[in-house]
Amino acid sequence: MLLKHRLSISQIFAFTWKVDLLLLACCTLVYFLDVHYLYFKLEIPVGISAVLGTAIAFFIGFNNNQAYDRWWEARKIWGAITNDSRSWARSLYNYHNSTEVATQSLIRHMIYRHLAFVYALKTALRKRPDDYYTRYLAQDEIEAVQKETNIPNAILNLQAKDLQLLRNTGAIDGFTFLELDQLLVKHCDSMGQSERIRNTVFPPTYLYFTKVFIWFYVILNTFLMTDTIGAWSIPFGWMFGFVFHATHLNGTFLQDPFDFQPLSIPLDNIARNIEINTIQLLGEEPVPGPVKPRMDGLYIM
Amino acid sequence: MLLKHRLSISQIFAFTWKVDLLLLACCTLVYFLDVHYLYFKLEIPVGISAVLGTAIAFFIGFNNNQAYDRWWEARKIWGAITNDSRSWARSLYNYHNSTEVATQSLIRHMIYRHLAFVYALKTALRKRPDDYYTRYLAQDEIEAVQKETNIPNAILNLQAKDLQLLRNTGAIDGFTFLELDQLLVKHCDSMGQSERIRNTVFPPTYLYFTKVFIWFYVILNTFLMTDTIGAWSIPFGWMFGFVFHATHLNGTFLQDPFDFQPLSIPLDNIARNIEINTIQLLGEEPVPGPVKPRMDGLYIM
Amino acid sequence: MLLKHRLSISQIFAFTWKVDLLLLACCTLVYFLDVHYLYFKLEIPVGISAVLGTAIAFFIGFNNNQAYDRWWEARKIWGAITNDSRSWARSLYNYHNSTEVATQSLIRHMIYRHLAFVYALKTALRKRPDDYYTRYLAQDEIEAVQKETNIPNAILNLQAKDLQLLRNTGAIDGFTFLELDQLLVKHCDSMGQSERIRNTVFPPTYLYFTKVFIWFYVILNTFLMTDTIGAWSIPFGWMFGFVFHATHLNGTFLQDPFDFQPLSIPLDNIARNIEINTIQLLGEEPVPGPVKPRMDGLYIM
Amino acid sequence: MLLKHRLSISQIFAFTWKVDLLLLACCTLVYFLDVHYLYFKLEIPVGISAVLGTAIAFFIGFNNNQAYDRWWEARKIWGAITNDSRSWARSLYNYHNSTEVATQSLIRHMIYRHLAFVYALKTALRKRPDDYYTRYLAQDEIEAVQKETNIPNAILNLQAKDLQLLRNTGAIDGFTFLELDQLLVKHCDSMGQSERIRNTVFPPTYLYFTKVFIWFYVILNTFLMTDTIGAWSIPFGWMFGFVFHATHLNGTFLQDPFDFQPLSIPLDNIARNIEINTIQLLGEEPVPGPVKPRMDGLYIM
Amino acid sequence: MLLKHRLSISQIFAFTWKVDLLLLACCTLVYFLDVHYLYFKLEIPVGISAVLGTAIAFFIGFNNNQAYDRWWEARKIWGAITNDSRSWARSLYNYHNSTEVATQSLIRHMIYRHLAFVYALKTALRKRPDDYYTRYLAQDEIEAVQKETNIPNAILNLQAKDLQLLRNTGAIDGFTFLELDQLLVKHCDSMGQSERIRNTVFPPTYLYFTKVFIWFYVILNTFLMTDTIGAWSIPFGWMFGFVFHATHLNGTFLQDPFDFQPLSIPLDNIARNIEINTIQLLGEEPVPGPVKPRMDGLYIM
Repeated sequence: MLLKHRLSISQIFAFTWKVDLLLLACCTLVYFLDVHYLYFKLEIPVGISAVLGTAIAFFIGFNNNQAYDRWWEARKIWGAITNDSRSWARSLYNYHNSTEVATQSLIRHMIYRHLAFVYALKTALRKRPDDYYTRYLAQDEIEAVQKETNIPNAILNLQAKDLQLLRNTGAIDGFTFLELDQLLVKHCDSMGQSERIRNTVFPPTYLYFTKVFIWFYVILNTFLMTDTIGAWSIPFGWMFGFVFHATHLNGTFLQDPFDFQPLSIPLDNIARNIEINTIQLLGEEPVPGPVKPRMDGLYIM
Repeated sequence: MLLKHRLSISQIFAFTWKVDLLLLACCTLVYFLDVHYLYFKLEIPVGISAVLGTAIAFFIGFNNNQAYDRWWEARKIWGAITNDSRSWARSLYNYHNSTEVATQSLIRHMIYRHLAFVYALKTALRKRPDDYYTRYLAQDEIEAVQKETNIPNAILNLQAKDLQLLRNTGAIDGFTFLELDQLLVKHCDSMGQSERIRNTVFPPTYLYFTKVFIWFYVILNTFLMTDTIGAWSIPFGWMFGFVFHATHLNGTFLQDPFDFQPLSIPLDNIARNIEINTIQLLGEEPVPGPVKPRMDGLYIM
Repeated sequence: MLLKHRLSISQIFAFTWKVDLLLLACCTLVYFLDVHYLYFKLEIPVGISAVLGTAIAFFIGFNNNQAYDRWWEARKIWGAITNDSRSWARSLYNYHNSTEVATQSLIRHMIYRHLAFVYALKTALRKRPDDYYTRYLAQDEIEAVQKETNIPNAILNLQAKDLQLLRNTGAIDGFTFLELDQLLVKHCDSMGQSERIRNTVFPPTYLYFTKVFIWFYVILNTFLMTDTIGAWSIPFGWMFGFVFHATHLNGTFLQDPFDFQPLSIPLDNIARNIEINTIQLLGEEPVPGPVKPRMDGLYIM
Repeated sequence: MLLKHRLSISQIFAFTWKVDLLLLACCTLVYFLDVHYLYFKLEIPVGISAVLGTAIAFFIGFNNNQAYDRWWEARKIWGAITNDSRSWARSLYNYHNSTEVATQSLIRHMIYRHLAFVYALKTALRKRPDDYYTRYLAQDEIEAVQKETNIPNAILNLQAKDLQLLRNTGAIDGFTFLELDQLLVKHCDSMGQSERIRNTVFPPTYLYFTKVFIWFYVILNTFLMTDTIGAWSIPFGWMFGFVFHATHLNGTFLQDPFDFQPLSIPLDNIARNIEINTIQLLGEEPVPGPVKPRMDGLYIM
Repeated sequence: MLLKHRLSISQIFAFTWKVDLLLLACCTLVYFLDVHYLYFKLEIPVGISAVLGTAIAFFIGFNNNQAYDRWWEARKIWGAITNDSRSWARSLYNYHNSTEVATQSLIRHMIYRHLAFVYALKTALRKRPDDYYTRYLAQDEIEAVQKETNIPNAILNLQAKDLQLLRNTGAIDGFTFLELDQLLVKHCDSMGQSERIRNTVFPPTYLYFTKVFIWFYVILNTFLMTDTIGAWSIPFGWMFGFVFHATHLNGTFLQDPFDFQPLSIPLDNIARNIEINTIQLLGEEPVPGPVKPRMDGLYIM
């Protein structure tokens, strides 16, 4: 997640340098072609090219809308994970009547094991090696869950097993069981929803065709401007192209909100906040520190 | 679901060849008509044709929005099926107190029978012969469910019957019954939602009129350009037409997300993932392998 | 619901003949007025008229969006009715422990009576005389419900009375009561949601003003074209008007999705599917046949 | 809620006369200024003014979308109130086992008291004096609720008190209590949602700036047209201004859907329908008649 | 929340003075550059610049849509907090059977402690020092909650502890526990949802690029107008720039709806209304007065 509201020229360039160079090369090429080979031929009415530009602006808008919706839905899902994690810890911690040490220790483990779920889900979504989650599991649990393809799902299974155990020992009754199981179901739903966004490729035809259309327009536009403003068509061609390409790029960065890049959902930060809330609720030490922004405060992961 | 972000020229051509050829034929025809018969007559102000182009871009945008929503809703429904399937297996597996072999075997069968539900629903949505689901049903169950028009619905009925049985034998109590029945209701909802999208024809007037309007615009546009750029109006007429038609086609492919075509929801893949999760939860062998992409990684079904 | 993806010229004409004739008359009139009386006066810059056209395209888009949302919401509501009907039948059929004939017969009647609810709701929404629903009610029930203004609501009341009876006889316990009553509440919600769409008039000012604006634009446009293309302004004026009016008409047909017309939600078909699923669940005979498309497969009601 | 699909000229004039006169005055003034003082100066390219018009059409569209959403959300909330009112009456009436007269009379009073809630909420939203709700409360209840700032909320408190009483007397058990309390929570939610829409001012900067922008455009447009079509710029300036202003006005009328004006949600009508359903359920007399449309069938409140 | 529908010139100027001055400076600079240095060079077709303006209007519209959605979602969340607070107070107050003084006093404290939750959440969202919430907590509770990073979350933990206590003392049973815990879960959800909006930075690339694009357009536009209307390009350049910048600014003000500024969600007002409802329900004195509008009725916080 980007944190700074103002970007420096160098940050913009870092974000768009590839398309900037391509645009300059393209516009220059068009200019020379036009001046030296095609000058006399092309007088497309400007109104017709305007329609193309307007249509492309629509299609870029469409892509950005869907991309933003994916990004915001991803953020909502991890917001729900935050909420349900707090409710899970609060409910397990308070809603039992057990005074036995073994049961109390089991409950404490179930609260910690949820942190393993959160971190294992983060690892699965980011697709980067990270076994931080193992610190909240017992050794035999680590082995058991790593046998399965879907580790966070396997952790939920452990939670369900122990929930039934709590009930059988009388530490919780049916009503508390209902509340806790509903939270387990919600964890499972949020996990699946994250995976849905992670694994569903945004229809590539939209992105690809829109990119092709923008290049059509840049070329056409530069041709048209060369006729009236000569070599100025190169910077202006770049400028128009930049407006369309930069906006289109914005959308493509939001489309995969769980990738490891600056505009993504800050999973490290969210998971750490859940961890802090949980450990403070249990009154334990040490409480881990918050995640630090990167690149001099530019973004947080 | 398409997997590749970059499409080759041949893939684009495979996607659009029909409309490409029609466009070239149409533009060429218009050009000859204009040059040989109508040259002197048509001087429609370009601003008027621009309005038509802009309006059509709106209507294409409208169709694409609705088509994308259908596609994404379909994906969400099957995401919910994934989540509820995991919760179903996890809950049945853990939330019972039975030590009797018969009951444990019944529970195991109910977990497997849910896979039959998922695969039977897939078959019903795809409308292609596929009886993979029968492997998770007993012989008499296969006969019973095939008597009914709606096979997945008949499977849910079997699940409900056995759920009551579990309760009567004391394997589960009222609270667990509540949780499990709520999952059955959710399975039933997701089934009906899939059928709704499958069986509701997107209002064909929108698609049909938009297609007609695009052809209007292509013809008008080519006429207008012929006056100023001669035979160049053929490639440019094609280009403008391509932008509109390709975007419109994109939408029509997403409109029926359960059809058997590359842009559809990858039901094979989703169903297989549910199967893998379930079999691993039960700790059984062999675990089936994941579904493989087709056409050299281009898409997955 | 229209079923055919391709419409014939005669079907389009059947859909739009009124506006086609009005457009031709209007454009011809404008042409003659312009040529014989006003020729020298009107030189509105075409860019200004283009703004009008673009603005109208927006407003048509707005109306279509809202109309489509009403139509799709109506479809979702009847999808929910389908789902909840299946859950109602499945739950009542399986989740009881009664072996008494009287109770079993009561349960069977409650399942059938739900079909009366579905058909009575259909009749109320369509506002066409149709007492098919009475076949699933006892004689005294028919008399009782017809005394009330809202017949489907009165049927729900009968269901609630018998649900309490089931509970008092011990056929169901509190947990099953919870599940069944929640379904009754959902039936009641879907009923009210259907009525909301049926009885809420889409703000007529939007439709009316948009229609007036389109006529403004058609007249202005024809005037402008007459100056440059003479009598060709009549067919082109018709064409531009057709694009706007046809799209606007599309929206108005979707706005009242429970009216009895080809683009409406196919209530006959949905209600019949519920009936078929229910009767097959009960294992009874004869199962009624599916609803047949009308007009040679053009649409289904 | 407007009921008529066609508006007469006089009704349109009644709706827009203020802006019509202002537009005519403005366009005339601009014409005279242009002809007598500024004629030689202003030759803004028409494409630039077209951008302004298009941008304003967007912003009007934005306002209308949000306004329509508020209106439709308000309608949905009162649809939910209708549904939950029916469920409240149906559940209280059927789901108890008491044969004591006192309890039965209490239940009947709780059903009637809900009508007091509905009418008191209507009064609070409309902000017009109306104490119809008092007829469904006992004298001491009227005094008690009128001591509080929020009368419908105070009525819900009375309902909760008696619900607990029903439970303590054994007339209902815990399961029925769950169902009834969930309905009370829904009544409370709908009440708060209505108040949210009632009390949240739509950001006035949007409305105000859009209005200012439209006047900018009208003035600019009239100037531009005066140069080419002389005094005809007055009627055409009015026409363009009318299209924008009338659409903008449409939105502003929908923005406050609980105000007492013709386009508002018909609270009188909805509350009366709830009243009729409830009294018919109880089998009492007299049933009040439906609310009548006003202004010769033009609208209903 | 702004309360006035009409803004005075001085209020608009207070809202936009910075961008007004920048625009005037920019347009004047462009005018002088054009007249004295570049006059002969730049003849970009106006249709091309129109596309840029239209595209920017789209992107501004996109930002405004997302910003408005954040603002309205924030308002909905605090509407839900209002509703759930009323249900919390109503349920705790009525749904218990305890006659012991200690329990009744505990219940009263739990109702008041919820006000501490609401005010502590407000403080956390506004990020301004404000310890009003402490008046509804006991001294040891204040110390306990201030040890944690997230104070409102810590308060929820206290509520859960006492809820279990109520149950253990027999003041409430399992059914009432279910209802009350579900309200606690909802409070927790609303808290997390508020934090999500507060802490998620709207992707700054959208805002930043849109601002850059507007400046591109203002400069280009002023150049183009200077060629035809001379120094009049300065006021008109300002006017066009004002339309785009003011609309863009509108969006940026709504984007962070919990900041302390006039367009934000009026948390003071909402929290106070909850406080008034709660204290009146308990029948206590004194009832605090409503929050007063600021700046002569311009806005309320």
